Amino acid sequence: MRVIILGGGFGGMKAAMGLDNKKGFDVLLIDRFNYHQFQPLFYQVATAGLDASNISFPLRKAFHNSRNVRIRIAEVIEILPHNKTVVTSSGEYAYDLLIIAMGADTNFFGNEQIARYAWPMKSTVEALKLRHHIIQNFERALEEQDEEQLKDLLTVVIVGGGPTGVELAGAIAEMRNWVLPKDYPELDFSKMRIFLVEGLDKVLAVMSEKSSERSTRYLDELGIKVITKAMVQDYDGEVLTFKDGRKIHTSTVIWAAGIKGNIPFGIPDSSVLKGNRIIVNEFNEVKDIPGIYAIGDIAYMETREYPKGHPQVAPVALEQGKLLCRNLIRQMNNEPLKPFVYHDKGVMATVGRHRAVADLPKPPLHIGGFMAWFAWLALHLFQIVGVKNRIFVFVNWIYHYFTFDQSLRLIFREFNTPADLVRERKSAKDKKPSAGSSRDVI
Amino acid sequence: MRVIILGGGFGGMKAAMGLDNKKGFDVLLIDRFNYHQFQPLFYQVATAGLDASNISFPLRKAFHNSRNVRIRIAEVIEILPHNKTVVTSSGEYAYDLLIIAMGADTNFFGNEQIARYAWPMKSTVEALKLRHHIIQNFERALEEQDEEQLKDLLTVVIVGGGPTGVELAGAIAEMRNWVLPKDYPELDFSKMRIFLVEGLDKVLAVMSEKSSERSTRYLDELGIKVITKAMVQDYDGEVLTFKDGRKIHTSTVIWAAGIKGNIPFGIPDSSVLKGNRIIVNEFNEVKDIPGIYAIGDIAYMETREYPKGHPQVAPVALEQGKLLCRNLIRQMNNEPLKPFVYHDKGVMATVGRHRAVADLPKPPLHIGGFMAWFAWLALHLFQIVGVKNRIFVFVNWIYHYFTFDQSLRLIFREFNTPADLVRERKSAKDKKPSAGSSRDVI
Repeated sequence: MRVIILGGGFGGMKAAMGLDNKKGFDVLLIDRFNYHQFQPLFYQVATAGLDASNISFPLRKAFHNSRNVRIRIAEVIEILPHNKTVVTSSGEYAYDLLIIAMGADTNFFGNEQIARYAWPMKSTVEALKLRHHIIQNFERALEEQDEEQLKDLLTVVIVGGGPTGVELAGAIAEMRNWVLPKDYPELDFSKMRIFLVEGLDKVLAVMSEKSSERSTRYLDELGIKVITKAMVQDYDGEVLTFKDGRKIHTSTVIWAAGIKGNIPFGIPDSSVLKGNRIIVNEFNEVKDIPGIYAIGDIAYMETREYPKGHPQVAPVALEQGKLLCRNLIRQMNNEPLKPFVYHDKGVMATVGRHRAVADLPKPPLHIGGFMAWFAWLALHLFQIVGVKNRIFVFVNWIYHYFTFDQSLRLIFREFNTPADLVRERKSAKDKKPSAGSSRDVI
Repeated sequence: MRVIILGGGFGGMKAAMGLDNKKGFDVLLIDRFNYHQFQPLFYQVATAGLDASNISFPLRKAFHNSRNVRIRIAEVIEILPHNKTVVTSSGEYAYDLLIIAMGADTNFFGNEQIARYAWPMKSTVEALKLRHHIIQNFERALEEQDEEQLKDLLTVVIVGGGPTGVELAGAIAEMRNWVLPKDYPELDFSKMRIFLVEGLDKVLAVMSEKSSERSTRYLDELGIKVITKAMVQDYDGEVLTFKDGRKIHTSTVIWAAGIKGNIPFGIPDSSVLKGNRIIVNEFNEVKDIPGIYAIGDIAYMETREYPKGHPQVAPVALEQGKLLCRNLIRQMNNEPLKPFVYHDKGVMATVGRHRAVADLPKPPLHIGGFMAWFAWLALHLFQIVGVKNRIFVFVNWIYHYFTFDQSLRLIFREFNTPADLVRERKSAKDKKPSAGSSRDVI
């Protein structure tokens, strides 16, 4: 039985591990990167707290001892369900069973200008780029003579008040409070502004009322300006405009406001739901296409407990990957399949360097502060793939905790030196007229 | 006294530290990167043994507690000695004293084609690019149907049999022997060939006869083919040609065959020697330009002990940086200056995972094998800047030693995914006729 798994994230990796060295299965795992990414810590890579390698695990290494799992680093171009073939940038591969675990990417809701100028953070490489941009901005600020331009460079706007936005805002605020004034003694960081923008009436709306309120207080104490009930209309690289006409002048907008599934070509429209999710039954079988399964963020499964689909979080992907493999083995042995039942693990989010909020489902429990933060640390450390990664993350965290220092403020650009970028920026500036004299209302 | 230091390498960093918080000096340290690079371990970054961040130290962090040292991340465009001004990509800066510590870059000896297709390794970013290329090559090899093309992909040529070339060759051989067959079970690594090419009649010619012979034996035992007395004529991305007409077909040529000083514009020709080195007296004052000093790899100083100039190695740069600062302070206090006298620390090179060769000057001692390797480890660990870097390098080394595993085989490309590159390569291949049927003689 030839099984192809598309994507080496939480779901795909778990599925491949579930079929590892299982008789009767030949597995091909295809990903565009050669490593598994630990998404929950992207924000720490972006804020120079962790190295990209600390949260990445080489896919090939994960299957060193496998007799039946092979890896291909390639981009998926198209699925041909009638030929049971996947077309990739490194050739075509035939399958008997296909597991789509391609996850989700940033959703800019069709606004191309925002997609161009705002920073997404849905891959390790994007997190690295964001890190470089943030550091580079302060280098530029040192040369800026114009007061208004300087203000723009020292303004960071994070759009999206979910866990990602909240955690990122907290980490940037800690940088401002502890590290940046030492790195750039010439700059006045009391002028630095961090905005967290949310369309709903509160941040962390997925969590309990209590946790949402707590996190709002924590954010406030960190000096983060939370703006709720604000819909972003546009961002042109200089001015962020809200639907109600308000504006913020800023050189940094980070977009954590939505995701959409990475649907490959070849999946019929009838199998795809709004938000780019593939409709599956409780065995993760894709609607209308036999032999194809979808798991994780990209899958949309309605059950009695979750009539509006499951949350797009790592535990769902992990559990679906695990169950699917067991069902495939059951199928091969002509045993009855088991439907998916999600056991909610709860939701957590850190806010700054020693506080977090957590909602635990059974018994319903809402904890906050240092204890929640400590639980968050332990849980994430435990989940990271690879013993060495765990050690390195642990040492990094201990180090930061006692030194208040994110020490990875390094710009390793492959193709441009920082100076090239400065020069580019300058020549661009010379050509372009200023954004005008009407300043922001925020 | 306004002092500008160009370059944050061994020499420039030491000079800045020597003037740190010294009364009467205002120091501006200018570098194109925002970190100090520990050059002796570039080869371990290139072979996925260490993270780039492990051997990099943020310049700003190094001077967190400084009242008089400021940093600018910028490219030096020109020096105007008559105006006592440095023109950079981030503006112009006036100086009273200028210290040039811009080091050396790869010397392709004017061959533009080699410069285009061969991989240099004289910066952290270049080491990262080389790492990505090496890994990417094996991914490409998986798809290669053509036997000859596959052979080219599995052939690595390192040009230059100095310490850098020898250490790199050893590290690549260890990868082939221990890691790559597990990562790519589909490939036959007995077919992988590693060549080390040297123009002189032996490798490590800068070292003693005994160390050179020892290292040749170690290289041989690692399965590295050493080619001596071979001058490279050209490399077009597919075929490396020697002056005597011999050829090697290969997709990877690493160039460690020479360096040249990074002379900035504005230094008069009369002050520059062949090999792009700036002529200085024994106080590191540049010939013909008062108020300008040069230290480290870029400086050429003749003394009684070193009538042909000093070796271009880290200890010389460090000692010159240290002495220069002390002399500047003496000058300010109207005390007599001290001339530079180099205390030779000896030369070492590792060959593979547990052997090295070392020449110690006093008493003349030539050690090899495990003991030399252990000394090499301890010395380098001690020299790395930053306590955390030291811990991380140490943990990485311990880990590799016991697992035989370079675990950082991660491709973090900023602008291209691996698949983009494969696609590029493919479309390039389709357009280009094959290299012809005459195969290599080596």
